[in-house]
Amino acid sequence: MANITKKVSWSSRCDEFGAVGEETPLLNGSDQARPLRQDSASGRPKEIAHNEKLLSLKFESLDYDNIENQLFLEEERRMSFLAFRCLEISRWVICGLIGFLTGLIACFIDIVVEQLAGIKYKVIKENIVRFTEAGGLSISLILWAVLNSSFVMLGAIMVAFFEPIAAGSGIPQIKCYLNGVKIPRVVRLKTLVIKVCGVICSVVGGLAVGKEGPMIHSGAVVAAGVSQGRSTSLKRDFKIFEYFRRDTEKRDFVSAGAAAGVSAAFGAPVGGVLFSLEEGASFWNQMLTWRIFFASMISTFTLNFFLSVYHNKTGDLSNPGLINFGSFESEAMGYNLYEIPLFMAMGALGGLLGALFNFLNYWLTIFRIRYVHRPCLQVMEAVLVAAVTAAVAFIMIYFSVDCQPLAPDHTEEYPLQLFCADGEYNSMATAFFNTPERSVRSLFHNPRGTYNALTLGLFTLTYFFLACWTYGLSVSAGVFIPSLLIGAAWGRLCGILLASTTSTASTWADPGKYALIGAAAQLGGIVRMTLSLTVIMMEATGNVTYGLPIMLVLMTAKIVGDYFQEGLYDIHIKLQSVPFLHWEAPATSHWLTAREVMSSPVICLNRIEKVGTIVDILSNTSTNHNGFPVVVQVSVDDEPAKLCGLILRSQLIVLLKHKVFVELARSRLTQRKLQLKDFRDAYPRFPPIQSIHVSQDERECMMDLTEFMNPTPYTVPLETSLPRVFKLFRALGLRHLVVVDDENRVNGLVTRKDLARYHLGKHGLEELHLAQT
Amino acid sequence: MANITKKVSWSSRCDEFGAVGEETPLLNGSDQARPLRQDSASGRPKEIAHNEKLLSLKFESLDYDNIENQLFLEEERRMSFLAFRCLEISRWVICGLIGFLTGLIACFIDIVVEQLAGIKYKVIKENIVRFTEAGGLSISLILWAVLNSSFVMLGAIMVAFFEPIAAGSGIPQIKCYLNGVKIPRVVRLKTLVIKVCGVICSVVGGLAVGKEGPMIHSGAVVAAGVSQGRSTSLKRDFKIFEYFRRDTEKRDFVSAGAAAGVSAAFGAPVGGVLFSLEEGASFWNQMLTWRIFFASMISTFTLNFFLSVYHNKTGDLSNPGLINFGSFESEAMGYNLYEIPLFMAMGALGGLLGALFNFLNYWLTIFRIRYVHRPCLQVMEAVLVAAVTAAVAFIMIYFSVDCQPLAPDHTEEYPLQLFCADGEYNSMATAFFNTPERSVRSLFHNPRGTYNALTLGLFTLTYFFLACWTYGLSVSAGVFIPSLLIGAAWGRLCGILLASTTSTASTWADPGKYALIGAAAQLGGIVRMTLSLTVIMMEATGNVTYGLPIMLVLMTAKIVGDYFQEGLYDIHIKLQSVPFLHWEAPATSHWLTAREVMSSPVICLNRIEKVGTIVDILSNTSTNHNGFPVVVQVSVDDEPAKLCGLILRSQLIVLLKHKVFVELARSRLTQRKLQLKDFRDAYPRFPPIQSIHVSQDERECMMDLTEFMNPTPYTVPLETSLPRVFKLFRALGLRHLVVVDDENRVNGLVTRKDLARYHLGKHGLEELHLAQT
Repeated sequence: MANITKKVSWSSRCDEFGAVGEETPLLNGSDQARPLRQDSASGRPKEIAHNEKLLSLKFESLDYDNIENQLFLEEERRMSFLAFRCLEISRWVICGLIGFLTGLIACFIDIVVEQLAGIKYKVIKENIVRFTEAGGLSISLILWAVLNSSFVMLGAIMVAFFEPIAAGSGIPQIKCYLNGVKIPRVVRLKTLVIKVCGVICSVVGGLAVGKEGPMIHSGAVVAAGVSQGRSTSLKRDFKIFEYFRRDTEKRDFVSAGAAAGVSAAFGAPVGGVLFSLEEGASFWNQMLTWRIFFASMISTFTLNFFLSVYHNKTGDLSNPGLINFGSFESEAMGYNLYEIPLFMAMGALGGLLGALFNFLNYWLTIFRIRYVHRPCLQVMEAVLVAAVTAAVAFIMIYFSVDCQPLAPDHTEEYPLQLFCADGEYNSMATAFFNTPERSVRSLFHNPRGTYNALTLGLFTLTYFFLACWTYGLSVSAGVFIPSLLIGAAWGRLCGILLASTTSTASTWADPGKYALIGAAAQLGGIVRMTLSLTVIMMEATGNVTYGLPIMLVLMTAKIVGDYFQEGLYDIHIKLQSVPFLHWEAPATSHWLTAREVMSSPVICLNRIEKVGTIVDILSNTSTNHNGFPVVVQVSVDDEPAKLCGLILRSQLIVLLKHKVFVELARSRLTQRKLQLKDFRDAYPRFPPIQSIHVSQDERECMMDLTEFMNPTPYTVPLETSLPRVFKLFRALGLRHLVVVDDENRVNGLVTRKDLARYHLGKHGLEELHLAQT
Repeated sequence: MANITKKVSWSSRCDEFGAVGEETPLLNGSDQARPLRQDSASGRPKEIAHNEKLLSLKFESLDYDNIENQLFLEEERRMSFLAFRCLEISRWVICGLIGFLTGLIACFIDIVVEQLAGIKYKVIKENIVRFTEAGGLSISLILWAVLNSSFVMLGAIMVAFFEPIAAGSGIPQIKCYLNGVKIPRVVRLKTLVIKVCGVICSVVGGLAVGKEGPMIHSGAVVAAGVSQGRSTSLKRDFKIFEYFRRDTEKRDFVSAGAAAGVSAAFGAPVGGVLFSLEEGASFWNQMLTWRIFFASMISTFTLNFFLSVYHNKTGDLSNPGLINFGSFESEAMGYNLYEIPLFMAMGALGGLLGALFNFLNYWLTIFRIRYVHRPCLQVMEAVLVAAVTAAVAFIMIYFSVDCQPLAPDHTEEYPLQLFCADGEYNSMATAFFNTPERSVRSLFHNPRGTYNALTLGLFTLTYFFLACWTYGLSVSAGVFIPSLLIGAAWGRLCGILLASTTSTASTWADPGKYALIGAAAQLGGIVRMTLSLTVIMMEATGNVTYGLPIMLVLMTAKIVGDYFQEGLYDIHIKLQSVPFLHWEAPATSHWLTAREVMSSPVICLNRIEKVGTIVDILSNTSTNHNGFPVVVQVSVDDEPAKLCGLILRSQLIVLLKHKVFVELARSRLTQRKLQLKDFRDAYPRFPPIQSIHVSQDERECMMDLTEFMNPTPYTVPLETSLPRVFKLFRALGLRHLVVVDDENRVNGLVTRKDLARYHLGKHGLEELHLAQT
C-alpha cells in the first residue's frame, strides 16, 4: 500500500549529535539512537541548498493558540464587558486604518509608476521618432535598454543587498505566514519600504512584471505594523493596542492586510476576503471575516477616491483597483452554451502552458539557488534581464509589419508610427511599448482587427519566456499581470482564429471575450487558485455573467496543470523547504498514528526547575527546542512523567531576563511578580539565550513555572490517527501538541514539521527529510 | 463581575429524578444532589411552552466528528489512493447534481408561480374592469379575497397538518443544521415536497412573502437526499454513495445545497458560498468550499438556462436568480462621497424599523406558541391573513388618487386603470396588484415620478404590518422579498423627499438608487446578515460599484438593530430553545472552567459490558444520554475510572439489533463480525431501544465494545477555561467532549447544551435553563 521513503536525514542527524543526552541531564531518555526533534529556532550556520524534498528547521510556527496561563487568565477575568467592547472597537479601527494605508500605498505606487513610465516612454518615443527617418535606431535601442537597466539595477540593488525577502511578489511568503509559519523579517517596515520602491523600479524598468502581487505583501506588512501600535525598527512605541501584541491577534490582522492588498490591487474586496480565507484562515470566524471585508472595502475605496482626485474627476469611483480590466458590457459579451467546451479547451491549454511555465521556472530557481546566490550576481542577472527585455521588445517592434490605422479617439497612450504610413501605428508596439496593465486592457477591449494573428503569436512566445525568466529575480515584482498578458494574447489569438473558421463564428467569437478567457486560463494555470481568483476576475471585470465560464476555465486549468506540476507559489514554498500544512492530511495516512509521527523522547521541565538546567537546555544549539512540556517530576530514567503544562522558549527567556528566581528553593514567596506586559514588551523579537547573563550563583536558584506555563495544553493519546492529529493541529493553529499515554504521561510532542513531513507523491505517501537550515 | 442567574431548572430536575442512580448500578456516582445531563434524545412527552430563556433537550447534535473506531480505520487503511480519488470525484458529481436539481426546483417554482399568478391577476383585473364602471367593486374585493384565501388555505393545510417543519422560510432550521444541531425531519423528501407546493400557494395567494428563503431549505433537502444515494421515505436504495452515509459528509453536502439554494434564489453564487460559510462551516476547508462554489454555479446556471428556454430566448443568460433586481447602470447610478452619511442614516433607520419588525414578530410568535398551536387554528389564521391582505390592498388601491400616465413601453404587467383617466393607471396598484418580486423591480427601476410620496408612505406602513403578521404563519414563505419591498418603498420615498429639498439634490437623488439602499437597510435590519448579504445584493444588482455603500448600510443597520433586538432568525431559533453555538464563547467567560461547565457524574460503560446493563442504560428515559465514555473498569463507588474510548447510543443500538454478543463472558472469539455497512444502513434513522427485543438469556451475555468505540476521543483537563473548551468544541464540530483529570480518569462530559447555556445578556454573563422538551 502506501510507500514510505526511509528516514535518511533522521539517522544522519542522530550521528551528528548523538551525545546530547549527556550534556543535558534532564533529557528524558537514554534511547540515543533516536533523534530529538522539536520546533527549532535556527540550525547551524552551515548553508545547504534548499530542496523540495527537505523541510527546513529554520522556520518556526506562529503561536496561534493562546497561552492561557495564570497571568493571562487573571487579566481576562479582571476585564469587564466594556473593556472587551473597547477591544472590539479597536479591532475595527485598526482594520479601517489597515485598509486606508494599504489604499494609500497602492495609490502612491500607481501614481509614481505612471509618472515615471510616462517620462520614460515619452523620452524614448521622441528619440525613436527622431531616428526613424534619420536612421540609427540602434541609438534608441541603447537608450531604451540603458534606461530600463538603470531602473532595474536600482531596484535590484535595494532588494539584493538590503532586504532579500522583499524579492518577488511576496505571495508565497504571505501564504506561509497565514498558514502559520513565521518567515523571518517578512512583516517589517524595512521590507515594506524596499518592496514599494523595488516594485516601482521594476515596473518602470519595463520588466515583464506587475505591481499587484507586491500589494498583497505590502498590505500584510501595514497590518502587522499598525496592529502592534509600535515600530520595533523605528524604536517608537505608541503605547496603544498592547493587547494585540501576540501571534494570535497579529495573524488575524495580517490576513486583513493581505485581503486589503488584493482589494487594492484588483478592486476586488470580496476576492480579497476569499483570498485570505483560501490561503490562510483554517478557523473561520464570522467577526474576523467581517473585519477583513471592512479593511478590503476601505482599501479599494481609498485607492478609488485618491485616484479620482488625481485624475481630476473627484468622486468618480470607477478605478477601484491598480489593474482595471475596463467595463465589459454584458450585451456585447454574452456567451453561448456551445462556447463552454471551447472555453474549457482553452482552460486546458492554459493549464498546459502554466505547467510549462512552472516547470521552466522551477529549474531556473534551482539554478539560481545553486549558482546565483551572491547579491552582486543577482543584481547583474536582473540588469541583464532588463536589457534583454528592452532589446527583444525593440527587435519585435522593429521587424513587425503589422500597421493599424490610428482611430481619432484612440486609447493608445504612446502610439509608435515607426515605419508605418502616416496616420497608422505599429501594432506590436501597443503590446510591448506600454506598461503591462495597459497592454492587458488593450487586448481586452481594442476592436477587432487591431492585432493580426502573427503579432499576437510572436508576442505570446517572447513574453512567455521573458516573464518566466523574470519571475524569481531579486526584484520586487508580481506574476499576475504578465500571466494575464500572455493569456490575453493567446486568448485573443484563439478568438481571431475561431472567427476566421466560419462566418457564423465571426459573429460570436469576440476577440476581447476570448482574451479574457485566455487570461483567466493562463493565470489559473500558473498560480492554481480557483475560488478567490474567480471572484477576483469577476470583480475586476465588473461583470457577474462571466462567473461560470471563468470558474470552469480556472478549474480545468487547475486540474490539467496539477497533473504535471504544482502551482508556482507552491513550488517556491517547497524550494524554500517551508513546513507548509495543507488543508487535510494525505488521504492514505490513516494507518499512521501519533505514536509514529511524534518526536520523542521530549525534553521536559519540572514545575519548579533549577535555573542552570533551563539555561543549559536553552543554550543547547543542537536541539534548539521551542516548547517544553512541564511535568510533575522529571525522572532520571527514561520513564515518562505526568504532564502538567507547557512552556515556550520565549517565555523562559523573558523569565530569565527578568531574573524571576526563587532565592531559596523552598520559599516561593520571594519570586518577583511578572506582568503580562513584560512578555508583550519583549514580543516579537525575543533576545537569544546567549545575550542573557546568568551568574554562577543564579544558576543554583530555582524558577517556579506554575504561573507562566499553559496548564491546559491540548493533548492526544498515542493511538490517535494522523488525520485526527492533523485536523486538531490545523483547526486550532497549534504549534505543539503533546502526545500522552493513558496515564497522562508525556510520551512525545507533535509539531508542524512532524505533520508537514508526510505528503502524497507519485508513489503514494512519501516522507520529506528534515534539513538543518 | 459577571453575574449568573441561579440554576433553577437544574435543581428542579434533580428533584424529579433523583433516584436514577438506584436504577442504574453503573452510574458513576453517589452524589445524587447533582443532576445528570448529557446529550439527550427526547424528553418526556409533557409539552411546555418554548421560551428564549430555555434550552430544549429534544435537539441532538450532529456527529460531525468522525468516529475513528477500528472498523473505520480498517476500511480507510484498506482503501487505495485511487479509491480516495474516486470518492473525491463522486463528491464533485454529487455537488453538480445538487446544483442542477436545486436549479430545476427553482425553475419549477418560478414558472408555476408566474403562470398561476398570471391567471389570478388576469381574472381579477377583468372583474375589476367590469365592475369599475358598473359599480359593485365589492364583488371584485370578494373575488380577490376568496381566490387568495383558497390558495393560502391549501398551502396552510399542507404545512399545518402534514409537515409543520416546512413552515416559514426554513432559514433558521438550516442555520441550526449547519451549526450542528439535528432538527427532526428537516431534510426529508416530504418536507421538500410540501415546502415547494406550500411556497407556490402562498406566493400565488398574494401574501406578503417571497419564494427565495424556501429555496435555501429546498437546496439543503436536495443535498441531503442526493448525497445519501437513497430515499428512506420512498424506501429506495440506489446502493451508491454509501461512504457518505454519516453526519460529517452529509452536513458538508447540506452546506453545498444551502449555497445552491441562495445562488438560485438571488443569482448569487459567491453570495451562496459566503452564506453557507457565514452560517455554518466553522472549519473552513478549501476543497469543500470549491465544491460548494461549484454547486452554486451549476444551480444558478441551470435556472438561468431553463428560464431562458421558457422565455423563448435560449442562451440569453440574464435571469440568474428567482429575484432579479434588473441591471443598474453604473453611469446613471454613481454616488457621491457626501451621500455616504445619508446612506448610513438610512441604514440606521433600517436598523430601527428592523428592530421594530422583529419586536412585533417576537410577541406575535410568543402569542402563536401559546394560543395558536392547533393545526386548524393555524390554517384559520393563515386564511384570515390572506383575506385581510387582499382587503387592505384593495382598499388602498380603491382610495388611492395617485394616477400616472401609462407609457407606451410600460413594464407594468397588470396596470389597473380603476378611477384614473384613460391612458393612466393607478400607481398604488403597481405596488399591491403584482407579485412582490415585480413590485421590488418597479420600485428600483421605474422612472422618477412614477409614485407620489403619499402612495409610498401608505404602502410602506401597511406592508410593514402585513409582512410582520405574515412571517411565522403556518405557510412556506420567505421574509427576504417583503423586507426588500418595504425598504425599497421607504427608500424611494427618502429619494423623492431628498430630491424635493434642493435643486442640486434633485440631480443626484435618483429614487431608484435610494430604493436600493433602503431595501438593503430594511433587509439588513431584519435579518442582520452582513458579509453574505452584501455580496448577494452586489450580485443581484450585477454591480460592484455599490459594494461599499451597501456594506456600510448593512453594518449600520446591524449595529443599530442589535442594540434593540436580535435578528429575526435568531429570535426564532431562540424561541425554539435550540442550543445554538455562536462563533466564540462569551467574552467574559474566562473564569469558568470545564469543571464548572461539564455534566457529571457520567454514566460510563466497561470495555466488555453486560448486555442487560446496556439495555437498562439505553432504556432509561429520564436520562436518554447519547454518548457514553468507555472506561477500563467502572468502579462501584464514585471513584472516576480511566478513559479508554467513547461510544454512541446509535452504535450500541446497532450492536444490540445485530446481537453482537459474546456467549460466554470470557471467550471473545464467538462474537459476530459487524461491518461498517451495518452502521451505514441503519443511518440516519436508528431504531429506538424499545423496538429491540432482548431476551432474558441475552441480557446475561456480554458485549465487547473495543472494536466499535472511538478509542481516541478528544479530551480536556478539568482546569481548561470555557473559551478554550468552546474553541475546541466548535472548531471540530464535536458532540461530546470528555473532561478528564490528570490521571486520565473521566470526570465529566461537555456537550453542546453545556456550552450553549452561557450567553451574554444585558447584565453580563447569563445562564439559560434546560427545558425538558
